[in-house]
Amino acid sequence: MSIETNDPPATRLPGTRYATATEVRRFAADALHAVGARRADAELTAEVLVAADLAGVDSHGVARLRRYVTGLADGTISATAKPTVISETGAVAVVDAGNGLGQPALCFAVDLAAERARQTGVAVVTVRASNHIGIAGWYSERAARAGMFAIVTTNASPQVAPSGAAEPMFGTDPISYAVPAGANPLCFDAATSIVPRGKLERLHREQRSMRVGWAIGPDGTDSADIAAVVAGLKARAGYALLPLGGRGEDHGGHKGSGLALLVELLCGPLAGADWSRHTYDTDGANLGQFVLCLDIGALGDATEITARIAEMSAELRAARPGDCAVPVRLPGDRRRRCRAERADTGIPLLSPVLTDLAAIATAHGLPPLRCFAEPRSQQPG
Amino acid sequence: MSIETNDPPATRLPGTRYATATEVRRFAADALHAVGARRADAELTAEVLVAADLAGVDSHGVARLRRYVTGLADGTISATAKPTVISETGAVAVVDAGNGLGQPALCFAVDLAAERARQTGVAVVTVRASNHIGIAGWYSERAARAGMFAIVTTNASPQVAPSGAAEPMFGTDPISYAVPAGANPLCFDAATSIVPRGKLERLHREQRSMRVGWAIGPDGTDSADIAAVVAGLKARAGYALLPLGGRGEDHGGHKGSGLALLVELLCGPLAGADWSRHTYDTDGANLGQFVLCLDIGALGDATEITARIAEMSAELRAARPGDCAVPVRLPGDRRRRCRAERADTGIPLLSPVLTDLAAIATAHGLPPLRCFAEPRSQQPG
Repeated sequence: MSIETNDPPATRLPGTRYATATEVRRFAADALHAVGARRADAELTAEVLVAADLAGVDSHGVARLRRYVTGLADGTISATAKPTVISETGAVAVVDAGNGLGQPALCFAVDLAAERARQTGVAVVTVRASNHIGIAGWYSERAARAGMFAIVTTNASPQVAPSGAAEPMFGTDPISYAVPAGANPLCFDAATSIVPRGKLERLHREQRSMRVGWAIGPDGTDSADIAAVVAGLKARAGYALLPLGGRGEDHGGHKGSGLALLVELLCGPLAGADWSRHTYDTDGANLGQFVLCLDIGALGDATEITARIAEMSAELRAARPGDCAVPVRLPGDRRRRCRAERADTGIPLLSPVLTDLAAIATAHGLPPLRCFAEPRSQQPG
Repeated sequence: MSIETNDPPATRLPGTRYATATEVRRFAADALHAVGARRADAELTAEVLVAADLAGVDSHGVARLRRYVTGLADGTISATAKPTVISETGAVAVVDAGNGLGQPALCFAVDLAAERARQTGVAVVTVRASNHIGIAGWYSERAARAGMFAIVTTNASPQVAPSGAAEPMFGTDPISYAVPAGANPLCFDAATSIVPRGKLERLHREQRSMRVGWAIGPDGTDSADIAAVVAGLKARAGYALLPLGGRGEDHGGHKGSGLALLVELLCGPLAGADWSRHTYDTDGANLGQFVLCLDIGALGDATEITARIAEMSAELRAARPGDCAVPVRLPGDRRRRCRAERADTGIPLLSPVLTDLAAIATAHGLPPLRCFAEPRSQQPG
């Protein structure tokens, strides 16, 4: 779920086409609505998917639509569920998503947390019986735009081996935080594994390699056979990603594992959901999410604090660069640049995604997605 | 500030002696009181130092006493300051430590946060104008024993290069969390650098080597010359530690850097203290700390939640181990084992620490620390 990747933008693969954000959003919302999601839920979910595509986190964008549509159609995800506050104690609320789409449930939780925090300074809202939520950064950034320092986390299907273990038990378990920092919030969003599965899938599609130290095979030793790792993770065949810091303790893998455990605690037992190892059983995903909102106005003058964060950001960007002579980037910088670029060129859609979307249109009698063959800014006119 | 290290217990160095925890605590408290600290503040600070020694985090134990005593004696740290609540907004309080010892200020903040959270479910307390606080895990564990899920962080002097930068700007910036988990809280406490400086100092004293990838020299390239790195960090000569995940992005160093930035934001601009790069100027350290307490009883039945965490912990410990065939450990396991061992054998004190403590005793007319030459359990009788 990292949305900071260490790759240059994907090289253009044969069959890639482009669509505007507006059109992708329209299509995704129509598709979700067609399989029973309420119009508002469908639109919000489409919004979060498109935000991922715009930010360059293609693994969490409209490429996921097929899974959501299938889940709603076959009842694995409830189309009629509404997030419900099942308890409120002071500045803490517990939300049950009723096995509905994760996006509307988590968005509801974030807005509730921000509203409460405006009164109490800080608030926590947890979500249980939830599903995949897209990119965690979308939610923390939303709260930051409302004047909050926010932390948003979610657990996920088991894919990461805890430090010292040879089997996947943790999700890729992103930690996201955001805070007002001037024109744009400063927003961090990263999986607690070195790389998320979606990135390996992308590298594999691009016929690129992976590094030794990112994943292990069923026998617990390093595996860098990207085809085997991607297939093995998907089939739950004992392959596992390694936590941030990698194998063992020499580069701090036990710390990365401890941060994944933090997410598991917050989103599992504390939220009243399953922890990753037990998610996606016969009763649905039962993922959990955790939201903290802290009103920066409760800590002092919000304008002054924001100005100090902007100043700090500027100092960091002006730091003497390392041996690669690339200016220092802050969390979110790359996503912002990609957003500007794709708002111009359109969102690139790979051939398998286009096939999925065409099949959805046919199955549900929707107008097909309007695409163009070249990045838009390169089109005549 | 990591208190999970990847080392076996230090080999015994020539001149090492042992003292009981009670005796080290007595000596440290007397010394701090002798240079003006209030008796209660001196005792609390001694308690936190000894907790580090017992847990095996020798760099944060009584080895630090000389710095505290010197700071109090020369007025760099205020002996008379009392932590003061300077604002309270709902469940958020801002504390000014008045440049006093960090331990009493942060302990005050933690107790205040836990007390507020019992009423409001969640509370945040920040501390500004503060000093070194010892091990962050001591405070989160204290809150967990009061029924809280707690996060405690502190910033520190600049020693870590942000991802992509070639100069130290962040502190080693530990993140600590703790939660009730049965007989003992589950407690994580780790620097957001791969290794803290204290660990390099220890390896150097033990004439051991460091790994390539832990630190960089003033030119921004890797440096694994441990003598040069230790001296260069101390002299602020442009050497820097690398964040969790290491150089660049191949193993997630940009994520480790983003987590250090989280600590800097919480403890710097949000707490109204300096961020690490600007700490320790002529006005004192002006470090900041951040405390979150979440009453687990606000999320559901506390006994049930605790039981689920204990169950999850047991499942993790029973995971199939990796190639090293060592059972999976959870955060805090190693510290707990060390605590039990040292409660038995006594706390090992290296020769330079003994020299410091003897000098303190002489300078302030204190009874010298009573030591023994061998681990106590090996003594006759």
